[in-house]
Amino acid sequence: MTHTSYKYLLEVNSPDDLKKLPIEALQSYCDELRHFIIEQLAENPGHLASSLGTVELTAALHYVYNTPYDKVIWDVGHQAYAHKIITGRRDRFSTNRKLGGLSGFPRIAESPYDAFGAGHSSVSISAALGIATASRLRGEKRDVVAVIGDGALTGGLAFEGLNNAGAANTDLLVILNDNHMSIDPNVGALKEYLLSISTSKHYNNAKNKIWEWLTPVPRLRRMIQNAGNAIKQGLLQQSNLFESFNFRYFGPVDGHDVKLLTKVLRDLKEIPGPKLLHVLTVKGKGYRPAESNQSVWHAPGKFNPETGERLTGGATQLPPRYQDVFGHTILELARHDNRIVGVTPAMPTGCSLSVMMEQMPERCFDVGIAEGHAVTFSAGMAAAGLIPFCNIYSSFMQRAFDNVIHDVALQNLGVVFCLDRAGLVGEDGATHHGVFDIAYFRPIPNLVIASPLNEADLRDLMYTAQASGRPFVIRYPRGRGEGVALRKEFAAMPIGKGQILQEGEDVALLTFGPVGNAAARAAKRAGEAGVSVFHADLRYAKPLDEELLHHVGRRFRRVITVEDGVIHGGVGSAVLEFFDQQGYTPHVEMLGIGDHFVEHGTVAQLQHLCGYDEEEIYQKLLEKNEVNG
Amino acid sequence: MTHTSYKYLLEVNSPDDLKKLPIEALQSYCDELRHFIIEQLAENPGHLASSLGTVELTAALHYVYNTPYDKVIWDVGHQAYAHKIITGRRDRFSTNRKLGGLSGFPRIAESPYDAFGAGHSSVSISAALGIATASRLRGEKRDVVAVIGDGALTGGLAFEGLNNAGAANTDLLVILNDNHMSIDPNVGALKEYLLSISTSKHYNNAKNKIWEWLTPVPRLRRMIQNAGNAIKQGLLQQSNLFESFNFRYFGPVDGHDVKLLTKVLRDLKEIPGPKLLHVLTVKGKGYRPAESNQSVWHAPGKFNPETGERLTGGATQLPPRYQDVFGHTILELARHDNRIVGVTPAMPTGCSLSVMMEQMPERCFDVGIAEGHAVTFSAGMAAAGLIPFCNIYSSFMQRAFDNVIHDVALQNLGVVFCLDRAGLVGEDGATHHGVFDIAYFRPIPNLVIASPLNEADLRDLMYTAQASGRPFVIRYPRGRGEGVALRKEFAAMPIGKGQILQEGEDVALLTFGPVGNAAARAAKRAGEAGVSVFHADLRYAKPLDEELLHHVGRRFRRVITVEDGVIHGGVGSAVLEFFDQQGYTPHVEMLGIGDHFVEHGTVAQLQHLCGYDEEEIYQKLLEKNEVNG
Repeated sequence: MTHTSYKYLLEVNSPDDLKKLPIEALQSYCDELRHFIIEQLAENPGHLASSLGTVELTAALHYVYNTPYDKVIWDVGHQAYAHKIITGRRDRFSTNRKLGGLSGFPRIAESPYDAFGAGHSSVSISAALGIATASRLRGEKRDVVAVIGDGALTGGLAFEGLNNAGAANTDLLVILNDNHMSIDPNVGALKEYLLSISTSKHYNNAKNKIWEWLTPVPRLRRMIQNAGNAIKQGLLQQSNLFESFNFRYFGPVDGHDVKLLTKVLRDLKEIPGPKLLHVLTVKGKGYRPAESNQSVWHAPGKFNPETGERLTGGATQLPPRYQDVFGHTILELARHDNRIVGVTPAMPTGCSLSVMMEQMPERCFDVGIAEGHAVTFSAGMAAAGLIPFCNIYSSFMQRAFDNVIHDVALQNLGVVFCLDRAGLVGEDGATHHGVFDIAYFRPIPNLVIASPLNEADLRDLMYTAQASGRPFVIRYPRGRGEGVALRKEFAAMPIGKGQILQEGEDVALLTFGPVGNAAARAAKRAGEAGVSVFHADLRYAKPLDEELLHHVGRRFRRVITVEDGVIHGGVGSAVLEFFDQQGYTPHVEMLGIGDHFVEHGTVAQLQHLCGYDEEEIYQKLLEKNEVNG
Repeated sequence: MTHTSYKYLLEVNSPDDLKKLPIEALQSYCDELRHFIIEQLAENPGHLASSLGTVELTAALHYVYNTPYDKVIWDVGHQAYAHKIITGRRDRFSTNRKLGGLSGFPRIAESPYDAFGAGHSSVSISAALGIATASRLRGEKRDVVAVIGDGALTGGLAFEGLNNAGAANTDLLVILNDNHMSIDPNVGALKEYLLSISTSKHYNNAKNKIWEWLTPVPRLRRMIQNAGNAIKQGLLQQSNLFESFNFRYFGPVDGHDVKLLTKVLRDLKEIPGPKLLHVLTVKGKGYRPAESNQSVWHAPGKFNPETGERLTGGATQLPPRYQDVFGHTILELARHDNRIVGVTPAMPTGCSLSVMMEQMPERCFDVGIAEGHAVTFSAGMAAAGLIPFCNIYSSFMQRAFDNVIHDVALQNLGVVFCLDRAGLVGEDGATHHGVFDIAYFRPIPNLVIASPLNEADLRDLMYTAQASGRPFVIRYPRGRGEGVALRKEFAAMPIGKGQILQEGEDVALLTFGPVGNAAARAAKRAGEAGVSVFHADLRYAKPLDEELLHHVGRRFRRVITVEDGVIHGGVGSAVLEFFDQQGYTPHVEMLGIGDHFVEHGTVAQLQHLCGYDEEEIYQKLLEKNEVNG
């Protein structure tokens, strides 16, 4: 299929255009839309498999509902590419996830069709209930639909939403997009439960009966009014989980039969109250490589759309990713200490705990999308004598903030938190940047907060953390290491001690984490330009290296701090607090992220825009050094 | 009953002593224990009703299980007084919640019988699963029991725990202590569901059958092994919610029949895997005033145990509580703007949203213990044009941190967050102090963070917030206002503007929130002692009053900041950052809470210990003012 061979795709620039298509043409439109997504993502990487799985569902929703007046809320949102393309953003779709281009997720600010922003999981039911409640109070008659995956349903927030939506008896449709996957295969008792519904002997039976009953609709309404209990106990007896929350359950139905979906949605529009439609989809649907390896094709990078060959760009010569160093190191440590266990909320591949999981499955726990549980479960294990490494992406750790305070720090339990994807993450944008962690963890007593300068230091920090018996946070970025040699022997990195990377006279440069490497290059260049830079890697944001800071406070009038995170309350702020308390008065210039959210783009672009890439640090080092003379 | 008339109570100083009692004496012991709790709490206030409801359950647990080797984890923990008394802390129980005395909640550090700390809700299943998993991996055969209320079960974390415990197939008993109450009556679809189980026609039937089947146990085990499905579909068909999570459901049973409870627990010990025992209890059981008004008697203060008269100490002459000013003000604002709605996670009485709820029930939402949902639901309503006031206690807001970032601040939605119980709260102790909020919210873009100097200012800040259209945080303390006159007319308080309370020359005092009143008294006294103090109430921690701070930065060499919260990253730190960025170099002394958790005691005691009560501020003002000359 080529651009010119599209029969319907280019005609549809809005849901209104879509509605003009005859129902018979919808599947062909979906095929073209799917082809377009594959073609686009082959060139411009993004979340492929999720979006392929929801093409028919998306088309059916916009075909049936009066969007944007009716509201569709996408959970997580990386399945919403078809939604973006249908709602007038096809021409700009080549800018997806690029600086200044479309966001990879729904954003209120981007389109009136994006009813609520997304990025993090399990939000949609609560948000949809809010929107539906507002409509009810304002006397506006509008349909509100939340689309949530079976993975996202494991997040406790989704249950809080179900519990309230069921009690509120508000008109609301929750569509459960069940593909048995998060990014990795879904886990938990709920998964087994949903599978048992989908495969039970009642399945086809129930499905047939639904359509018998739903047609014609007025008859159905009467039946529901007159025989609610019969429906529950007869037709849908296997679906009591959702009925426990006072939702009417319908399904499961084939999520790739677009005609059926439009029919179901039309019928459901007539039924009041909270309803759940269980839709079965295949992640990666319609693209064989993606269907056969769904975890890899969640976000495959560039690929050849014809052959399915992924274009990894000679990865063998590149440094290892931080996540892989984590994976191999925890396995190595666990071999020497059987108290070590690993915990991840639904990211075994993404954080590379999978490396240990393959070797020691009984000591690794993928708890599903459930960050709060991941932390409190780890706390329980630590209280009982184990040494849990709990790996959570920095921005998702925001979900478990209280668990860290209440269950770990307050009890001073030895849980090691590995915060992957800390700092700016690039194309995933504002919801995924892990930029607040230093600031929100620094005020919490008992925590140790560290970041490695490079992948070799990550190993030693993990070694130090597991031996410390203390609540210990290690943050490290998305992507590849610095290419330094990995040291085979572990060495402890004394808690609260940094390292001097370069001696100097004119200005002190204090950095935290891998951003110190760009800073080191900037410091060298500044030296060549005649500015003598003292550069230290703090390594610990908490506790600070007080000896080092006394040295700096005594000797320098000008101090520059650099961190891959927000400035307010961050490492620079910690240094400043220390200087103030100790009576030192150097001017501290804090580089990092200012008081604004950062959108999507490459990490290099964003670090430049935020003013702390190598060049920006270099320019800062050259500024007004006259004050130090 | 007098102390000397106790027949069993004084003999029991440990679970071992308890086990020596004949089963026939257990109910009498429980009666005495209940009497002791009432007698103690009449004098020394605490959480009465919850603890009265669990006397029999607690006795049965310690009678049957080998604590502390077996682990009992109490959710929330304010129902654990009987547990403390049985486990060797009866003699110290008069120190409950007092400075240096027993904590009002289980604490690992307090007793080996306290298997996991508590205070916040919905934690117990995750923690118990961690402990049970560790025992399994370490090859230790031990029983692990989580006791969770029906209120706490509405928290999403509890569902994350159930979902994982069910899948893990670990030996674990969850006891659902169902009294239909949180602090206020429980809400949500789940409540209706639990009620339907308890009252269904299957109830007695099922209960009888359980005991028929459970005796003798070996027969039961065979039946479970051979006929798991039959059990599910026959005996327990009404309990599919928990079975959806792969828990075996037992109950409901009478939670005040201690003999029955010991029998049930003994039998359940023999059954492997995840099990849920549904126990029906009455909050306030055995004390008629408490049974008949459970919300008030959750924590009644001092009272006359004979008459049930609460000793409120002539409250009519005292200033109104901040919470009441909130309640009356939101009602007043809501009368003028029908977009205003109120949201509380299970604290309508505690935060006084009940005042509006009585007048406008359709515009108030008690969402149950579900802080994350409260925030995201509010965000949904704001996205649809309403103005939600979302009232969450400061320390519980930690539960919804990501919801504030991801769903409110990033989308810049006009949700007004009222953080009651901000700052040190006194007797509830470390888990309940609301001391981190300034520090964890300050790094988040788009947020406005304010605190009133007194109850009159709270009204105007609420007025300002609802008109602002911005994400707006107002923090205010537990307890009574300052006794100032309430202004009838509302007046906007310009965002980012503080107020000068006193002009002065020697030292600048910058305060945030009601702690400014003690500071003002200290400043007056310092003036009488010859130190001229400039004192400003910042009112906004974000955005800061830059004009005011330029003025202070230019004129003063010594600045003292005072806040009712942690120093690291707090208001003082914000002021320091501003001075540094602007090139001012006064010495800033930050008063507030240092880098440690604060235990329980009166607010006055704790503020003194932390160094920011009136006397401490006064002493600080007198120090080394020679530097300013």
